[in-house]
Amino acid sequence: MPKWLTKDAPENDVIVSSRMRLARNLSDVPFPTKIKKPEDIEKVHDCAKQSILKSPEFTYSRLSDMDALGKRALIERHIISSELSRKQDSGLIKSSDESISVMIMEEDHYRLQSLVAGFSPNKAYSDVDLLDKMLSDGVSYAYDERLGFLTSCPTNAGTGLRASVMMHLPALTASRGIERISSMISKVGMTVRGAYGEGSAASGSFYQISNQVTLGVTEQEIIKRLTTTVKTVMDYERNTRKQMHKNLGIVLEDKIWRAIGVLKNARRMGYNEAQKLISDVALGVALGIVPKITSSELYSVMMDSRPAIIAEQKGKMTPQQRDIIRANMIRKVFNN
Amino acid sequence: MPKWLTKDAPENDVIVSSRMRLARNLSDVPFPTKIKKPEDIEKVHDCAKQSILKSPEFTYSRLSDMDALGKRALIERHIISSELSRKQDSGLIKSSDESISVMIMEEDHYRLQSLVAGFSPNKAYSDVDLLDKMLSDGVSYAYDERLGFLTSCPTNAGTGLRASVMMHLPALTASRGIERISSMISKVGMTVRGAYGEGSAASGSFYQISNQVTLGVTEQEIIKRLTTTVKTVMDYERNTRKQMHKNLGIVLEDKIWRAIGVLKNARRMGYNEAQKLISDVALGVALGIVPKITSSELYSVMMDSRPAIIAEQKGKMTPQQRDIIRANMIRKVFNN
Repeated sequence: MPKWLTKDAPENDVIVSSRMRLARNLSDVPFPTKIKKPEDIEKVHDCAKQSILKSPEFTYSRLSDMDALGKRALIERHIISSELSRKQDSGLIKSSDESISVMIMEEDHYRLQSLVAGFSPNKAYSDVDLLDKMLSDGVSYAYDERLGFLTSCPTNAGTGLRASVMMHLPALTASRGIERISSMISKVGMTVRGAYGEGSAASGSFYQISNQVTLGVTEQEIIKRLTTTVKTVMDYERNTRKQMHKNLGIVLEDKIWRAIGVLKNARRMGYNEAQKLISDVALGVALGIVPKITSSELYSVMMDSRPAIIAEQKGKMTPQQRDIIRANMIRKVFNN
Repeated sequence: MPKWLTKDAPENDVIVSSRMRLARNLSDVPFPTKIKKPEDIEKVHDCAKQSILKSPEFTYSRLSDMDALGKRALIERHIISSELSRKQDSGLIKSSDESISVMIMEEDHYRLQSLVAGFSPNKAYSDVDLLDKMLSDGVSYAYDERLGFLTSCPTNAGTGLRASVMMHLPALTASRGIERISSMISKVGMTVRGAYGEGSAASGSFYQISNQVTLGVTEQEIIKRLTTTVKTVMDYERNTRKQMHKNLGIVLEDKIWRAIGVLKNARRMGYNEAQKLISDVALGVALGIVPKITSSELYSVMMDSRPAIIAEQKGKMTPQQRDIIRANMIRKVFNN
């Protein structure tokens, strides 16, 4: 289980995690798209190292020193972007539980991030804010009195804050409520997208809701709007779940129990199937149909069963071998 | 579990049951197709009752006194034919465990039957022979010195014996070996047909192999030929299973364990699915993949999960309710 994913996070029947990301750049070094001089690049790295590595819970690595698998696993855990992994001069600072991290030399000099289990936007913000203070103590940020923080891409300027919540919305997915939500959400400057499965709504019914606007609003306003939006979606999802259970009754229960049966017994399993079945079980847990396992434990198995995360723990292997190891890992969890 | 289906029947990894059926008619009463007078019909019933009901393990019933459900359940257990159930003047004598029975006024005056678990054609024959002796003691059979026993349909004349074995052939079904077997079998005067599922090869891979020729051969010759044929098919099936396991490995094991997972957890299940999944598990038991359950127990659950047999035990219900009861029953068996 990822260490940041606690067993009894708030609202974890619907919400996997809350995440904050701040875009920051140094004032006296060209932005990553323009940067040329090696000493400038080193300066970007050094400033972050000097400010943040004071605290012993953080470690620094250069992406170019990591193997492809390690990078892929970090992407799967949503700690780094694939853009960062592709860059020659990029770096990463992260806390031991990976709840706090800094991507160095991605689109901006720094992308500060915090990740908290369940619905905790305020905790996530205070974590990233603390990190921001640590870093800003030693450096001078690119900042404009009128615009706020300056960023490579204007859509991130202003607060530089991207606040997001990962939600599990199986009932809204099944009832096609997601489409209605999507348009409602965009009206308040928010956006929803599939959290896993390469951009699509994906098999596991996981979605990321985040703010689209970073400029002309305060951090607190962004968090407040996100909170309101997420609460609305959460209520909508919970009501739809209850309605679904009421309407489908044993048809739904059968589907959920069969998912458990397969998870407990399969000898090989692809990631997409695992995601789908675990999503079914998570719905069952939320509806009180399935006892003895928590939503967070389910989210955790799902994360642990992603391809590169398995390979990171068990070594290089063929996709067929990985499907066997995934099934073994899942079977162990579900039979306990 | 049907009482005749013992836990450790011979060759029960491939063979469900052995069955013998003798066609007999009285000499001094017209055959069922021609019979008119009520007193003749009563005579057919009375002769059987007087000879066989001497033994207290037998009971007699008139089909017209049974409800539709009871008749349907007897058909599903292969104790009566649907032809017998449709006839106005038909009757049934059966032993308490249903291993020995007489259909009265089906196509012939009497169809004497015995049913034994596993591969036991000799035991099945000695049982039906004993029944034949009980009946023939009190009556005079329609018999021709040259032709042997006379029957309504000439294909049954001579010995009047239909000897059959019900086999579970999942590997030959999957590998399409059944078609080859079918033509091989017909060359030696035998026939193979799907045992369940209304004439087709059916979902559960169960087949009945029986003699086609009853005339011009002795009973012992029929049984000997059946034995040889069944042993050939049995070896073929066993080798194909081993080959399949060797070739497919974990792909096959995964399929079998998933079947167990669904059987242990589903909340509703149709008969066809149950048959298919139990067939998969039976293959797993035979290959040593699945422990703690015997082939005979699996055959028994399959029989117990047939529609009218469930309804007979639990009362009238909708197909939806039956699917729930079936799943509950199967779940209980597989979780023990």
